[in-house]
Amino acid sequence: MVKTNAKGLSPIVEIERPSRTAIHLQVAESLRRGIQDGRIVGGARLASSRILASDWGVSRNTVIQVFATLVAEGILVSRVGDGTYVAMDARLDPETRANTDGIGGSPGIYPFRDLSRRGRILLSEPDYGVPERPRPFMPNVPDLRSFPIRSWLRLLNEVSGALTGDALSGVSSAGFMPLRKAIAHHVSITRALPCTADQVIVTTGSQQGLDLTSRLLADRGDPIWMENPGYLGTQAALAANGANIQRVPVDGEGMDIAAGIERALAPRLICVSAARQFPTGAVLSPSRRHALLEFASRTGAWIIEDDYDSELHYAAPPPIALGAQDRGSRVVFMGTFSTTLVPSLRLGYLVVPQDLIPAFTNARSISQGHASLLEQMVLAEMMNRGTYAAHVRRMRKLYRERQEVLVSTIKEHLGYFVPEFERTSGMHVVLPLVPEANDVRLAQRLAETGILTRPLSPFFSGGEALQGLLLGFAAFRPEELTRAGEKLSALFDYVAPAEPGCS
Amino acid sequence: MVKTNAKGLSPIVEIERPSRTAIHLQVAESLRRGIQDGRIVGGARLASSRILASDWGVSRNTVIQVFATLVAEGILVSRVGDGTYVAMDARLDPETRANTDGIGGSPGIYPFRDLSRRGRILLSEPDYGVPERPRPFMPNVPDLRSFPIRSWLRLLNEVSGALTGDALSGVSSAGFMPLRKAIAHHVSITRALPCTADQVIVTTGSQQGLDLTSRLLADRGDPIWMENPGYLGTQAALAANGANIQRVPVDGEGMDIAAGIERALAPRLICVSAARQFPTGAVLSPSRRHALLEFASRTGAWIIEDDYDSELHYAAPPPIALGAQDRGSRVVFMGTFSTTLVPSLRLGYLVVPQDLIPAFTNARSISQGHASLLEQMVLAEMMNRGTYAAHVRRMRKLYRERQEVLVSTIKEHLGYFVPEFERTSGMHVVLPLVPEANDVRLAQRLAETGILTRPLSPFFSGGEALQGLLLGFAAFRPEELTRAGEKLSALFDYVAPAEPGCS
Repeated sequence: MVKTNAKGLSPIVEIERPSRTAIHLQVAESLRRGIQDGRIVGGARLASSRILASDWGVSRNTVIQVFATLVAEGILVSRVGDGTYVAMDARLDPETRANTDGIGGSPGIYPFRDLSRRGRILLSEPDYGVPERPRPFMPNVPDLRSFPIRSWLRLLNEVSGALTGDALSGVSSAGFMPLRKAIAHHVSITRALPCTADQVIVTTGSQQGLDLTSRLLADRGDPIWMENPGYLGTQAALAANGANIQRVPVDGEGMDIAAGIERALAPRLICVSAARQFPTGAVLSPSRRHALLEFASRTGAWIIEDDYDSELHYAAPPPIALGAQDRGSRVVFMGTFSTTLVPSLRLGYLVVPQDLIPAFTNARSISQGHASLLEQMVLAEMMNRGTYAAHVRRMRKLYRERQEVLVSTIKEHLGYFVPEFERTSGMHVVLPLVPEANDVRLAQRLAETGILTRPLSPFFSGGEALQGLLLGFAAFRPEELTRAGEKLSALFDYVAPAEPGCS
Repeated sequence: MVKTNAKGLSPIVEIERPSRTAIHLQVAESLRRGIQDGRIVGGARLASSRILASDWGVSRNTVIQVFATLVAEGILVSRVGDGTYVAMDARLDPETRANTDGIGGSPGIYPFRDLSRRGRILLSEPDYGVPERPRPFMPNVPDLRSFPIRSWLRLLNEVSGALTGDALSGVSSAGFMPLRKAIAHHVSITRALPCTADQVIVTTGSQQGLDLTSRLLADRGDPIWMENPGYLGTQAALAANGANIQRVPVDGEGMDIAAGIERALAPRLICVSAARQFPTGAVLSPSRRHALLEFASRTGAWIIEDDYDSELHYAAPPPIALGAQDRGSRVVFMGTFSTTLVPSLRLGYLVVPQDLIPAFTNARSISQGHASLLEQMVLAEMMNRGTYAAHVRRMRKLYRERQEVLVSTIKEHLGYFVPEFERTSGMHVVLPLVPEANDVRLAQRLAETGILTRPLSPFFSGGEALQGLLLGFAAFRPEELTRAGEKLSALFDYVAPAEPGCS
């Protein structure tokens, strides 16, 4: 129906001959219909008038006349020296087109037909697209080169032999039982969280865990607390499920529960990264933990503990899981293997209170099915043989060294007046900037010189964003960190003493 | 905190000595707290009084006294000759316990605390749990023994070598590009559906595809059409997303569009299995296809074409995809590898209209992340090397033969007056029963004799359920089919001539 090649789009048009309607009107109408139908999509470049005239069997003047008409209608756009394009919003009716000017978001995105309201919310969140090749100082990326690929492949080879006969019909949506057992064991040892294998629900990662939990435990419009600043993936998953997101401020002791109680709506669900707040690195203090659990138990709120990197605490073990202190069983614990192993493994888990097991299992089965059986089998073996624990220990040592290298590099290039960084955990440090700095623009400028940072201010919602840059160190060798570090000197004029809570 | 073994649960109790509180009261209180905390879970069998006395360092009489107290409170249950158990609802306070008697559903399930409304809907759908070991005549299971495990493992070995470095950081949420290309190619050839790799969104199976589509394209309360009878997984996914499900009757020509227009609410979304209706096997007739597309284009409704087994048409190629005839681009095409390969692979796909690509990609990234990279890589190789197409051809031949065997077996045991079965496609046949039969009870009775069928009536919603049994043949060898077939003679009195639409 639509031919397209290097020369541009040559849509097929319907022309009746003879007809009482002039040919240029027939062609224009045919193009309008094609655009409305979606056969001709916004943004496409049309072939030249010469080619179209030949393809359509009309004179070149006719084509030019059609172009002029449709440009006037806003359906086509003419770019001098470049050609004629189908307008991005060609499909909208003229009034809507006039009113949505600029609203459609980035110019590469079409105006959408009839998404649901919840679909539009999903679309309004940023698309992270294909993960980029890691380069300094990308945060949230583990050292991909350290992944024990050989022992992983060896295990893959071993376990895949078991993948025959009945095993191929699948497993429970809650996951492969030996993996659930291994995780229950791991969590009860490393996080002091007593649980049975039944309570472990294997997911394809934290986003799925958040999605499931916020659907099962909160309805559209229910207030849900999240940290401010906080993880954008959390924001996106909650927004997608229609949450009334209440941002609760974070300081050096983590989420400020008293401020939440005072200023936010009473929540149905509270998302908290207690062991290490993202992105500030704050650890929820004992009194805050107590206040949070007491509040949840008193009001009946649920808690999701996003335990995304408690295994990367360098100086001392992380504080125990909230659930270990939670007498009311109101905590859903969420762990991931994306930070300790690799993101592409797509495995994470939830530890849910006993009485929520059927709901979570059912929800998985109805909306997603189980995670990759093969990878669950390999991971179970890794955990049972101690390979996983050994890898995590190795990574802890490696990251701790890399954090030291990064901090020295920062001091070297930005002067020794920069604040002491929190160096006990995580995969990034936060470099605080003066309030007059524009961290988004600075990050862009640094990206142009080849180094990648994440600005701090977008993690805030509401008026009081701090300026800063997240610098990741986990995925990079010391020499990569020191080499890239030279470019940080461009920040010299913007560095500020740390604010509390962003150490 | 809680020790459990073959001998039963031996919870740790806190006893203060000396204390003004009697030891049996302290032990009882400690157990009550453990149960309220969730450390001691409902349904658990306690160790014997002798063991507990020794573990707790108290006299056996003390243990017996504690048991008596807690049994009287309803917290423990004593089963003669078996032992003492924690009551399923031990955690509730006594009044609630009294009031919820029998409401909690099956005795293994707790009454739930505070699920969201949408969570409760999810829970009300049946939990299929761990897939059972296939046995005749389980429908919807491919022949697991025919899965080309050796060539699959060989490919796994080959491609896993590429899983190093940057590849480990993951791929687009829409899927691994080489697989998306292979699927686009496959679909455009086998289903006459022209599409680009961009339009292909790799999912972890049809349930995820339905979940995503119904969230993105319809809001809570929006009318969605589905077939009557229809696939229960569809029903569950739509209900979970708050759809106002409108069941539209099915006859020998598939979904009755005119009846839908006349009797059902105007839909936001229409779910249809056009190439082969599930469970009846009806093929949507050309005039119905036309009516459906015309209706969708006129009213702006979206269509999901659930193409779950179009690759298993034995006599002639399946009708082309609805989207191939759809000038308005209102069709989301949904394919799966669970029927052609194995369910445990957990891979399926959607082909979405051009302008919905960003919405689907974003939604995947926010709510689920991508499917297993490794399995996407293996499948892409299988498709590119022709191994996949060869496997499907082999299965078509195998299943066709097995269908013949099953039909002969049915005729042998139920007499030659049974209707001619539709034998051109699928993995099951429907054996129609007389209206006086109770297919659910008959299926149960057959299950007790060791053969597994699925009753037809539960696939209906609303008053007019037909009685019948689905008999699957795909997963079983001819000798298994004929041997199990003998037991079908129990149905002799109930077999009826086929109703239209249930051939």
